[in-house]
Amino acid sequence: MPGSESLAETLAEALPADTGTMDLHVFPDRETYVRIDSPVAQRDVLLVAALDAPDSKLVPLFLVASTLSSLGARNIVLVAPYLPYLRQDSVFRPGEGLSSSYVAHWISGFADGLVTVEPHLHRIEALSDVFSIPCETASAASSITHWVGENVARPMIVGPDMASRHWSDGIARALECPGVFLHKVRHGDRRVEISIPDLPAYTDFTPVLVDDIISSGQTMAMAVRRLRSAGFPQPVCIGVHALFGQATADLLHAAGAERVVSCNSLRHPSNAIDLGRPVVAAARSLLRTLQAPRRA
Amino acid sequence: MPGSESLAETLAEALPADTGTMDLHVFPDRETYVRIDSPVAQRDVLLVAALDAPDSKLVPLFLVASTLSSLGARNIVLVAPYLPYLRQDSVFRPGEGLSSSYVAHWISGFADGLVTVEPHLHRIEALSDVFSIPCETASAASSITHWVGENVARPMIVGPDMASRHWSDGIARALECPGVFLHKVRHGDRRVEISIPDLPAYTDFTPVLVDDIISSGQTMAMAVRRLRSAGFPQPVCIGVHALFGQATADLLHAAGAERVVSCNSLRHPSNAIDLGRPVVAAARSLLRTLQAPRRA
Repeated sequence: MPGSESLAETLAEALPADTGTMDLHVFPDRETYVRIDSPVAQRDVLLVAALDAPDSKLVPLFLVASTLSSLGARNIVLVAPYLPYLRQDSVFRPGEGLSSSYVAHWISGFADGLVTVEPHLHRIEALSDVFSIPCETASAASSITHWVGENVARPMIVGPDMASRHWSDGIARALECPGVFLHKVRHGDRRVEISIPDLPAYTDFTPVLVDDIISSGQTMAMAVRRLRSAGFPQPVCIGVHALFGQATADLLHAAGAERVVSCNSLRHPSNAIDLGRPVVAAARSLLRTLQAPRRA
Repeated sequence: MPGSESLAETLAEALPADTGTMDLHVFPDRETYVRIDSPVAQRDVLLVAALDAPDSKLVPLFLVASTLSSLGARNIVLVAPYLPYLRQDSVFRPGEGLSSSYVAHWISGFADGLVTVEPHLHRIEALSDVFSIPCETASAASSITHWVGENVARPMIVGPDMASRHWSDGIARALECPGVFLHKVRHGDRRVEISIPDLPAYTDFTPVLVDDIISSGQTMAMAVRRLRSAGFPQPVCIGVHALFGQATADLLHAAGAERVVSCNSLRHPSNAIDLGRPVVAAARSLLRTLQAPRRA
């Protein structure tokens, strides 16, 4: 899909696979036109899509997948490094719906498999709880580990919360550096309090804050300020999925961040960390699952 | 849905029905938040939506319908006076899909019934060929007839083509005025030739061009020019669904149109003809269908 050409080429080269082409344009009446130019009958097709700002992107995706299916594609694998709508995973107030499960149900109807990276799973335990198609989740940890190893001297990994502790701890272990995590207490939609454990022993380490999504950046900015006032060097902020704009980048820098970088699940000026390897591995694994003989 | 409040109120008053309220807003990460504020359990809910520029509107619609369903609504009736995606109703070139049927299939999965006005059916014979839910089609003919009767002295109805002849002829018969239709020959996406029957006897009648959709306005502008050069007074152009911008309005006026007016299926500066009555009647009929005892 538009904007994902680079990851599509990485996948095509590594798997290896052919690169398909299509004509996807918007008619004057603002409907989407789809024509698949490549032969897809009896083939497994990986459909690569960057799904930030999802409302306007999901309908074209649905039309492309439906067209592939009508042209006889064997399996349609959605490769969506960023999976949207996972945050509405609970009825927080009466009258709300479970958008996460509605979207997952819909996608499960037009795709045969899903590859994603670091899905934002809090109250949903596994993607298979909401998707009825095989899903493969790539981890960004190895890519982040590699980047930090190359770019940050004496890092200290700061994870977002207890729930993601295994993730940030894994990066710290791989780098053989200290790893800590924040305690976050949420008061409503916007107000969040965080506490950082007492770390006088580490103040000559550069804090590397890691989170799956950087969106408003409020919590991360708060953590940056706490670390600065505790005497730490300017932190590096890393988000897997960059959903933020310039205002958030400015906020983080104003709070004292040295750099704000992201993985390339979504195209963004802060992209610095390549997810090609884990996505290729996850796609390979999913294709094996789909190609395995199925029970009747 | 946003933008359809006026029609929703007309329906609520006429049926009669209660008016529900909801909180529908866009999060900073551009996902849609839905909360239904009104009690909907065990009730038939009419969800009124203007579906021009459909890609960004269909996902919120899907989320609202899914939420209504999870809250126990008995029947969810989509009232979409303009039904999008009907024009991709055939594979015109290899590799294309049938977007009309994909969208219809999707909507049939989250709505229990559909009310629409003058759907653009060419190669699809009936909505039931693509929708698997009960559909009720309201005609704009009576509303247009009423408006022309009030606003145009000595009208001559000019229908868009043979296929819609029954429709434009019906308006002409109701007004007891002449009715003719265009012969349209399409050469590719943009080039269209039209011919108008020889009508010297009617040149003191005001041509009223009627069509279901005004979009680019090219064909209608051509017809206006032909009629002007044949000695007719400045025509009135009427479209049921106004999908056009100022450039099209300018084009039609430059060709010689006196007025360009539309029905209020979509909110548009050209709205002049109210569809309240036929939509209310169609909604009533559909609710009766849904409430009728079903076979086990």
